[in-house]
Amino acid sequence: MRNLCMKVNYDGTEYDGFQTQPNGNTIQDYLESAICSLTGERLKITGSGRTDAGVHAYGQVFNFHTESPIPIERWCLALNAWLPRDIIVTDAREVPLTFHARRMAKRKTYRYSINANRFPDIFHRRTQAHHPTKLDVQAMEQGLAHLIGTFDYTSFASRRSQKTNHVRTIYEAYMTVDHSFSRPGSDDQGIIHTYITGSGFLQHMVRIIMGTLLEVGEGKKSADDIPFILEAKNRSKAGPTAVGHALTLWSVEYEENIKKH
Amino acid sequence: MRNLCMKVNYDGTEYDGFQTQPNGNTIQDYLESAICSLTGERLKITGSGRTDAGVHAYGQVFNFHTESPIPIERWCLALNAWLPRDIIVTDAREVPLTFHARRMAKRKTYRYSINANRFPDIFHRRTQAHHPTKLDVQAMEQGLAHLIGTFDYTSFASRRSQKTNHVRTIYEAYMTVDHSFSRPGSDDQGIIHTYITGSGFLQHMVRIIMGTLLEVGEGKKSADDIPFILEAKNRSKAGPTAVGHALTLWSVEYEENIKKH
Repeated sequence: MRNLCMKVNYDGTEYDGFQTQPNGNTIQDYLESAICSLTGERLKITGSGRTDAGVHAYGQVFNFHTESPIPIERWCLALNAWLPRDIIVTDAREVPLTFHARRMAKRKTYRYSINANRFPDIFHRRTQAHHPTKLDVQAMEQGLAHLIGTFDYTSFASRRSQKTNHVRTIYEAYMTVDHSFSRPGSDDQGIIHTYITGSGFLQHMVRIIMGTLLEVGEGKKSADDIPFILEAKNRSKAGPTAVGHALTLWSVEYEENIKKH
Repeated sequence: MRNLCMKVNYDGTEYDGFQTQPNGNTIQDYLESAICSLTGERLKITGSGRTDAGVHAYGQVFNFHTESPIPIERWCLALNAWLPRDIIVTDAREVPLTFHARRMAKRKTYRYSINANRFPDIFHRRTQAHHPTKLDVQAMEQGLAHLIGTFDYTSFASRRSQKTNHVRTIYEAYMTVDHSFSRPGSDDQGIIHTYITGSGFLQHMVRIIMGTLLEVGEGKKSADDIPFILEAKNRSKAGPTAVGHALTLWSVEYEENIKKH
C-alpha cells in the first residue's frame, strides 16, 4: 500500500465543484475515474478541501492510497491522458501512509480577481468578476486589513455552514492592481487581485469577504464597519456573496517536510 | 455620413476568422449583425486585415460609414450588448471620411505564445501552444533577429498567398519569457511570448516564422539558416505552420493623428 499526494490545477467553469455530488461532473469524479482507468482501483481521493461550482484551482492538493506499482514519475502524464483538458495533475509524490490532505493542511491561499476596467478582459473573463464602476481600492485594502487575525467569522460564513466552530485565522491578505490591460488615457482601474491566506476557510467565506469589500469599494460600507460586522457574528451584517467564477484556490501548504508548493 | 473607427478584442477560439466567409461565424459577421441590430443598416465593415480561424485579437481595428446619429461615446456599450461574450468593442471614435482601416495601417504587431513548461497552463491554454520539450530560446532569438528588416518573405508565406509582391518590413521582433507559472525546482522553461511588428504580414507569415523558430529551438535548424531560407524565396525551405490558436493580433498603428493604440 502506498499513499500518493498530488497537485491538480483546474478551470472550474464547466464543473459542479471539487467534491463528489450525486449528479457527478465534479473534479473529484473525474480524478477518481482517471485513476480507475489507470489502475483499475475504485478508490476515493481526499482533497485538501472543497471548492464551489465554477471555482478554479491553481494548486489544489489531494491524496489517496493505492496498490499500484506505477513509478511515481509516471503518474502525472498518465493521469492527464485520462483527464479532460481543463483538469491537469502537475505534481505527484509518495508520502507517509499517515498523510491526510485535508486534516494536515496548515495554510490555504485563495485569489479573487476583479476586473475594474471599463470592458471585460476577453482572455481572462472565465476567472474574473467584472466591475467597471468606480471602486475605492484603498478603502477596500483598509477593510481587508481588519480581517487579518484570529476571529469568529460567522458573519462571513454561509448560513448553511455545518461547522460548529467558526473561529479561523487569516494570516495574510493583500491586494495587487495590474494595469497591463488598462487602456492608456482611460479611466480603467486595472485588474485587482486579492490574495487571502488562512488556516482554513468556512463555506463561501472568501466570496462573502469579497462581496463585503466590494460594498466598501463602492462606498456603501466603510472600511471601519468591518470590525463591527465581525463582532456581530451575523451573516446578514456582511455584504452579498460575490460571484464564484472569480475565485481560485491558489495554494495549499503543509508542514515543511511534506510541503506541496 | 460619418466614418467610425473602432477597436475590437476577441477570443477567436469559436470563430472561423475575422473576415466574412460563406458559412458565417466570423468576427466580421457578428460585428455587422450587431451594427444592424443597433442602427438598422446592412453595411460592410473594413478590418485592418484578416485573422485566421482560431486566432485572437487584442487590438483589431475596423471602420465603417454610417448614417446613424448615435453619439460616439454610446457605441461601445451598445454594440457589446448585441455581441457574443467573446467579442468586445473597446474603443470608438469618429475619423475623417477618407480613413480606411486596412489601407492606412502603418504597423501591426502580433504576439505568439508558447508554453514551454511541462504542463499546459489551465488558464491560458486557449491562447498558447504547448511545447514541453527542450527549447533553445537563445537560438530562437538569434533566428528571429535575422528576420528583422525589409525582405521578400516568400519562404514564410502560404503557397496560397494571392499577393503579387511578398516584400514586407519587420521593424521589431523580440521574445519575453514569463516564469510566473513555472514550478519551483522543475525544468519548466516558462511562457515564451514573441512580439513581431511589421508593415504588414503575408498569409500565415507569423505562424510559419514561429514554426521555423521552433525547429531552431529544437536544434533541427540553426539560427544561421534563416538568411538562406529568406534568400531561397521557397516555402518548402521554412518550417511548418505553427498552430493558429497561440497567435494574437496585438495592435495596429496608424499615422500619429489617427493613432489607435
